[in-house]
Amino acid sequence: MGTFAVTGSASGMGAASAAVLAAAGHTVIGVDLHDAEVVADLGTAEGREKAAEEILSRCGGTLDGVAAVAGVGPNLPDAAAVVSIDYFGPVRLLERLRPALTRSGAGRAVVIGSNSASTVPMIDDRLVDLALAGEEAAARARARAAAEAMPAGLRATAPSISAYASSKFALARWVRRTAVTPEWARHGVLLNAIAPGAVATPIMLGSTGDEAGRDPDAFPTPMPLGVFGRPEDIAFWVHQFLRPEARFTTGAILYVDGGTDAAMRPDGQPTAMTR
Amino acid sequence: MGTFAVTGSASGMGAASAAVLAAAGHTVIGVDLHDAEVVADLGTAEGREKAAEEILSRCGGTLDGVAAVAGVGPNLPDAAAVVSIDYFGPVRLLERLRPALTRSGAGRAVVIGSNSASTVPMIDDRLVDLALAGEEAAARARARAAAEAMPAGLRATAPSISAYASSKFALARWVRRTAVTPEWARHGVLLNAIAPGAVATPIMLGSTGDEAGRDPDAFPTPMPLGVFGRPEDIAFWVHQFLRPEARFTTGAILYVDGGTDAAMRPDGQPTAMTR
Repeated sequence: MGTFAVTGSASGMGAASAAVLAAAGHTVIGVDLHDAEVVADLGTAEGREKAAEEILSRCGGTLDGVAAVAGVGPNLPDAAAVVSIDYFGPVRLLERLRPALTRSGAGRAVVIGSNSASTVPMIDDRLVDLALAGEEAAARARARAAAEAMPAGLRATAPSISAYASSKFALARWVRRTAVTPEWARHGVLLNAIAPGAVATPIMLGSTGDEAGRDPDAFPTPMPLGVFGRPEDIAFWVHQFLRPEARFTTGAILYVDGGTDAAMRPDGQPTAMTR
Repeated sequence: MGTFAVTGSASGMGAASAAVLAAAGHTVIGVDLHDAEVVADLGTAEGREKAAEEILSRCGGTLDGVAAVAGVGPNLPDAAAVVSIDYFGPVRLLERLRPALTRSGAGRAVVIGSNSASTVPMIDDRLVDLALAGEEAAARARARAAAEAMPAGLRATAPSISAYASSKFALARWVRRTAVTPEWARHGVLLNAIAPGAVATPIMLGSTGDEAGRDPDAFPTPMPLGVFGRPEDIAFWVHQFLRPEARFTTGAILYVDGGTDAAMRPDGQPTAMTR
């Protein structure tokens, strides 16, 4: 049985991922702001370093896999925090944990992107470039300025929609660029992404946890399968990407979105890494 | 345990897929030109009808899943046959078997595409359009004429490369268009694709079955992971897409290609459904 780190383990897809790994007999090192083996804020450099050190201490320096699930949604008022949590959180932590994955011999990493990267028409190319260049302070400033320039109506309901979609877009592109580098690929450390659609998590449901007001046949385009996803629907695929048998897959992005991306762009590429 | 039809079950990825399903305790109805429960040629309308009838007879009208794995490669001299086998084979058979998948309550279909759809710069848009329009005779004639117009050198080594890549491209697009239609999606019948890269199958290795002459660091671009795939690497993902737990994934295309697509197009979309 292996040892796996799961970020965002206290709720939603992260909790479901931790549960499926634990049920399979693995040792799970959960990371979250509370109720986790490692309590750390992945939205800050200090928090990422704390998380990395505690994970490495707990696993003894060898990790079989990392599921970077922690994230926030487009409804968070602080667009700069969205960039730090959704892009720099997984990227910096994975860079830090890569040597431990290498020591496993069959290391696996999977990150949670979003179908927003291909279905939301608000990707900020400059923000994407800043993120990929590792310029966190500049990326944060860019996101904040863009949010302040948004129309008031949209800003009231989804103040960080552009920062969110752009961060997830940059994350998917980082996965594709990074997975094939010798540091990862030549050590058999696989790096892939899952791009969920509308999944009934605390992020999507908001503070009420109430799904009743949302109609899958309307939200925000009709869900082709007629249902929202459940956290365990994502955890199922997280688990597969972390298995030793997932030996020949790297730099891939699997949409797990109930068909939304295919419906919105039937002749389009499954992820809009170019637009 | 379920009942699954697997085409191409006599060799390569199909045989590996049938084996992993059987090992999981499922009933497998193999379809191939020989050494299969159902012997049929999926390159012809008559063969597809024979296959469908025999599958439906054997499963009693209810199927839990179909893995449409049968296919031929770009080295086949008859480009028209490539179109019939690689595009119309899976499409027509799946259309015919859809009602049986619906009766399962959680039907699953997975087809084998190819990373050639995004990495080979020889997609014939007209051929793609003819295939998607269901014009098999016209698509065959188009493929044959295009092959005859190829430069002699390329024609000697890969006479059907354009027909192959175009057929796989059309198949991926068909998956995305079809998966979200009510006939599939509203019955919970999921339809997804796997896009393999260089996998050591009889198709890739040719008649000699000899991998020795091929170098993963050179073929035809370096393999990022430094290895070719094995049939079981694809079968692993076939199995996952056929599971009941794969509940929220449809119209997706998963690249299982050792990172080739990501390496060739790091900032490109994971499948070039548009170019």
